[in-house]
Amino acid sequence: MNTEFFTRRATVRAYDKEKELTDAELESLIYAASHAPTLGNMQLYSVVVSREPEAVARLAKLHLGQPAAANCSALLTICADIRRFGKWCSARDAKSGLDNLGGWFMAITDAAIFGQQFVTAAEMNGLGCCYLGSLSYNVDGFKEALGIPEGVLPLYSISVGYPQGEVPAPADRLPLEGIMHRERYSDYSDADIDRIYGPKEALPSSAQFIAENGKETLAQVFADVRYPESLIKSIAAAISPIINK
Amino acid sequence: MNTEFFTRRATVRAYDKEKELTDAELESLIYAASHAPTLGNMQLYSVVVSREPEAVARLAKLHLGQPAAANCSALLTICADIRRFGKWCSARDAKSGLDNLGGWFMAITDAAIFGQQFVTAAEMNGLGCCYLGSLSYNVDGFKEALGIPEGVLPLYSISVGYPQGEVPAPADRLPLEGIMHRERYSDYSDADIDRIYGPKEALPSSAQFIAENGKETLAQVFADVRYPESLIKSIAAAISPIINK
Repeated sequence: MNTEFFTRRATVRAYDKEKELTDAELESLIYAASHAPTLGNMQLYSVVVSREPEAVARLAKLHLGQPAAANCSALLTICADIRRFGKWCSARDAKSGLDNLGGWFMAITDAAIFGQQFVTAAEMNGLGCCYLGSLSYNVDGFKEALGIPEGVLPLYSISVGYPQGEVPAPADRLPLEGIMHRERYSDYSDADIDRIYGPKEALPSSAQFIAENGKETLAQVFADVRYPESLIKSIAAAISPIINK
Repeated sequence: MNTEFFTRRATVRAYDKEKELTDAELESLIYAASHAPTLGNMQLYSVVVSREPEAVARLAKLHLGQPAAANCSALLTICADIRRFGKWCSARDAKSGLDNLGGWFMAITDAAIFGQQFVTAAEMNGLGCCYLGSLSYNVDGFKEALGIPEGVLPLYSISVGYPQGEVPAPADRLPLEGIMHRERYSDYSDADIDRIYGPKEALPSSAQFIAENGKETLAQVFADVRYPESLIKSIAAAISPIINK
């Protein structure tokens, strides 16, 4: 199996402002991505493309000022979308049954598959991308900024552009045994956890994260600082009224 | 932009039983896929690989007997997984804040990105894949069959194998204007819906689906027959107690 492209790819957060993607190039990548699989051939997603400098600057601010958003060639906001399908049904004497958690689950999945296919198509053409999950911290702000109506849930943005300088080294990943189970789910013992997370914990960057954040373990950096329960619950509070119906 | 691979790919449901994927090949594809992006570098997913003929046959039955599941070289069940991260936290004096809808949203997204990267890596190596969303119709059955514990939600399976015969033609897709919005979400008028869905409705296969199902419109086939509200609500009922906490 030739997997070199996949194991070497990396998130790119700094873009070359001298080398812009044309609208036609961007559209060909989005169209290519729309040929990705879906869960039921309903294409329950939409993408809002931001290219105007003021618009990108406004969204970058909503993304907590992340440089990847501010300096990209285009910012794509990936949305789960049950609205278009519902409108099609209404116009054709049918009634969509998707406006409940089951339909939103399908839409969130379709959107993620589509978004990742865009990223792969872009990266294979020498571009760099970065997922911006910070959208979830302010769903209403993005809905307002992008004019997103009921039946459409913005999930995250993807910034894209030609990399500035070298593409970074790939992010660290758990070993295969950390994510793969043969025939049955094999639950993790304490020894498994030590073995699976050991290499990640031993990285020099991990010691740095721990020190910078005044913590004792890398898990504390993730659980207390980056993704504390209060933040994750605020995401739940923002999306729950939309998808739980 | 070179996008030919993406626009020509198609779902493959019939596999060559004379040409099996080795375990090492399969594992190299899964490992490659694990280098896909994530929303927060927590890799909130797991995959259970089924290869033993009796196990695959049992799962194929749970997948309503779909031939793609029964005849594949391997069946991968993609799971959102907040359990492993939670165990890591517990072992390191940290408390995971992910066991609520916000954390499950991140996990469902990480899992979908990972699954799609597997599909792309497999397809680029001459394999064919098919998403089996029918898992959602019987979440408890799959949990039991695969020994999946609390904190892990099986989402769908992906069947993989070498294509039998020619790779099918790509599935029909909405035109670009159907899924892409420039700068702001541009809501769909009735005329837009006609234009966007017209080519799909005009396919010979659509007339066939309508006739076979005794319906008047293609939208009715999707909304009444394939994805009726009762089915979609049963998915909601199965996953809601797990992800809404």
